[in-house]
Amino acid sequence: MRQALALARSVMTSTTPNPRVGCVIVRDGRIVGEGATQPPGGPHAEVCALRDAAARGESVQGATMYVTLEPCSHFGRTPPCADAIAAAQPARVVVAMGDPNPQVNGQGLARLRAAGIAVTTGICADEALEINAGFIARMSRGTPWAWVKMAASLDGRSALHNGASQWITGEAARADGHAWRARSCVVLTGMGTMLKDNPRLNVRAVPTTRAPRRAVVDGRFEVPEDALLFDSANADGVETLIFTADPRAANSDKAARLADRNVRVVTLPEGDTHRVDLPAMMRWLGSHDINEVHVEAGAGLGGALLSAGCVDELLVYLAPVLLGDAAAMLRLPLIEHLEHARRFEFTDTLRLGADLRLRARDAARWQALHHAIMCRQD
Amino acid sequence: MRQALALARSVMTSTTPNPRVGCVIVRDGRIVGEGATQPPGGPHAEVCALRDAAARGESVQGATMYVTLEPCSHFGRTPPCADAIAAAQPARVVVAMGDPNPQVNGQGLARLRAAGIAVTTGICADEALEINAGFIARMSRGTPWAWVKMAASLDGRSALHNGASQWITGEAARADGHAWRARSCVVLTGMGTMLKDNPRLNVRAVPTTRAPRRAVVDGRFEVPEDALLFDSANADGVETLIFTADPRAANSDKAARLADRNVRVVTLPEGDTHRVDLPAMMRWLGSHDINEVHVEAGAGLGGALLSAGCVDELLVYLAPVLLGDAAAMLRLPLIEHLEHARRFEFTDTLRLGADLRLRARDAARWQALHHAIMCRQD
Repeated sequence: MRQALALARSVMTSTTPNPRVGCVIVRDGRIVGEGATQPPGGPHAEVCALRDAAARGESVQGATMYVTLEPCSHFGRTPPCADAIAAAQPARVVVAMGDPNPQVNGQGLARLRAAGIAVTTGICADEALEINAGFIARMSRGTPWAWVKMAASLDGRSALHNGASQWITGEAARADGHAWRARSCVVLTGMGTMLKDNPRLNVRAVPTTRAPRRAVVDGRFEVPEDALLFDSANADGVETLIFTADPRAANSDKAARLADRNVRVVTLPEGDTHRVDLPAMMRWLGSHDINEVHVEAGAGLGGALLSAGCVDELLVYLAPVLLGDAAAMLRLPLIEHLEHARRFEFTDTLRLGADLRLRARDAARWQALHHAIMCRQD
Repeated sequence: MRQALALARSVMTSTTPNPRVGCVIVRDGRIVGEGATQPPGGPHAEVCALRDAAARGESVQGATMYVTLEPCSHFGRTPPCADAIAAAQPARVVVAMGDPNPQVNGQGLARLRAAGIAVTTGICADEALEINAGFIARMSRGTPWAWVKMAASLDGRSALHNGASQWITGEAARADGHAWRARSCVVLTGMGTMLKDNPRLNVRAVPTTRAPRRAVVDGRFEVPEDALLFDSANADGVETLIFTADPRAANSDKAARLADRNVRVVTLPEGDTHRVDLPAMMRWLGSHDINEVHVEAGAGLGGALLSAGCVDELLVYLAPVLLGDAAAMLRLPLIEHLEHARRFEFTDTLRLGADLRLRARDAARWQALHHAIMCRQD
């Protein structure tokens, strides 16, 4: 299963909106086939592994297959993996976690058992969920897994009082930040960052096979038409989304001009305010095949997403530096009691050059995903 | 040497103002004696190890002695260790780092070499310096090693806007904070913390054999006579220091009453302001046998010490919680360019219950100590 997980991790940037899955087939103590999910339209991990075994001239009959996610049981862009496995007749299939996709949700396992194959589930479930938290979130709750990326000083500041914020963290931390952009389905920012930094938000510091979309939360539809982000998204061949609260935005000339540059304007007002309904935005993204949202914004949008309950994880790059009286990392409402503070749990800590990367996730939201991957047929 | 370092670490709280030293004697691949420095007045590590070997009926002749610090060459409360070693005639002495104490500073090694003993130096120097940074700082630059302990939320806040700050971090982080109090020579705080929290600043959560002194930076000599700190220091049998800028403080009735309770008032004004001259305070502490200063104060004194160049290390306990609009960790002056920001380097990161402990030290100040422990006779 460790090898199957490693295979899944090898396709972090290429399978979306499908999950990243790895599969290893073992017979008589030898690996006779292995595979990882190919880009959309291509075969899933199980079929890749079966084909690999066939290419090696190895029989799968009586073997054990390790798969990081329950095999699918429905016709999508490809035929059901569960049928292909049943036909190959391994003795046993070991599955890391169940697939809460309503079209699967235990039916994949049921089909294997019906074919006389022994099924074991829940092996390395935590590592497997880690790889596909976004897919599982979209399938089980209808919204993507969202993380907020921040760079801050040791005293919790993200910029100087005069706004200078570039280069707080070093090269290695920036490259790691780009790796997180690369795995995401969409990189989301706000108008504060757009106007201050005019960012491209593309993946530069690490190699990748696929570019994430870009999205801007732009309540008043003020985005400049010459923003670098549009050029960069066009160069990558991906759509850009503008979420706005302005009811006239969608039918405006500006929207028409932007449409020619592959920009889609989505109007989601929060009541009759100028603010975007952020939970509605997350639902919209979930219903449009977005598994993972990488938020790279200022203290305003980051704080608003947290306050609206739209954040699963914090990705904090800490530089060993003190900035003193300067901009806060997040703009959050006042709280009166410590018990009301938002609680996360630290997961891993990584040294990146001179900097540290801290990850902290919302424990309750993670537990809910854990519940969703419990195999129904157990 | 690893075992000698472990012995030194076993006496972290008991040797001050002497350094924590460990010694292991090895002959024919067996440990024949070991020891660690005893409380002031008692024997140093080398003599303990020689006595241990004697008690075991083992000869030290021809053996190798591992010592974490250059053996002393002067008569202090005890006779010179170098002479005791020379008399025992080991073949070789391996020393982790030199002792910059002007009364030693290479003379200990010279005496061993003069006695025909082979000397090797600089083995595990970094770990050895880590254990005695305070002693080395006092000997080489005349001021103690000072760390600022802080507890903060993931967004860099140390308290809510209404001042509530207790229990940001959990039990394990608090116990670790007490272990740092226990190893220090003095626990230093400011009047903001005194008036807000009325702390005792004693060592409660971990066992210890010796209590650190307490010190308060109190520019205007406003400390309340019924502060719990005085009772707690009296219970521990240690002196309390009040650093003030008030020229009338020392001869006041209040000072006389406090003197009866083992409180010493030290007047160190910064020019003719109401502020204490913090670098002068550090020199005063260094000249009064203080190796290590544990600063447990608010954003005001912490920031002032940093601005005055009095801080060697930051000890930051981070809770996985977001506090939002709340008090900053440190009050530091505005800076206009990132290059002017105070740069530290992260050393180790430790998970403590749900919290993280980050340590970051001033790289230039650490390097200066490293230079000071280079053995003069090499």
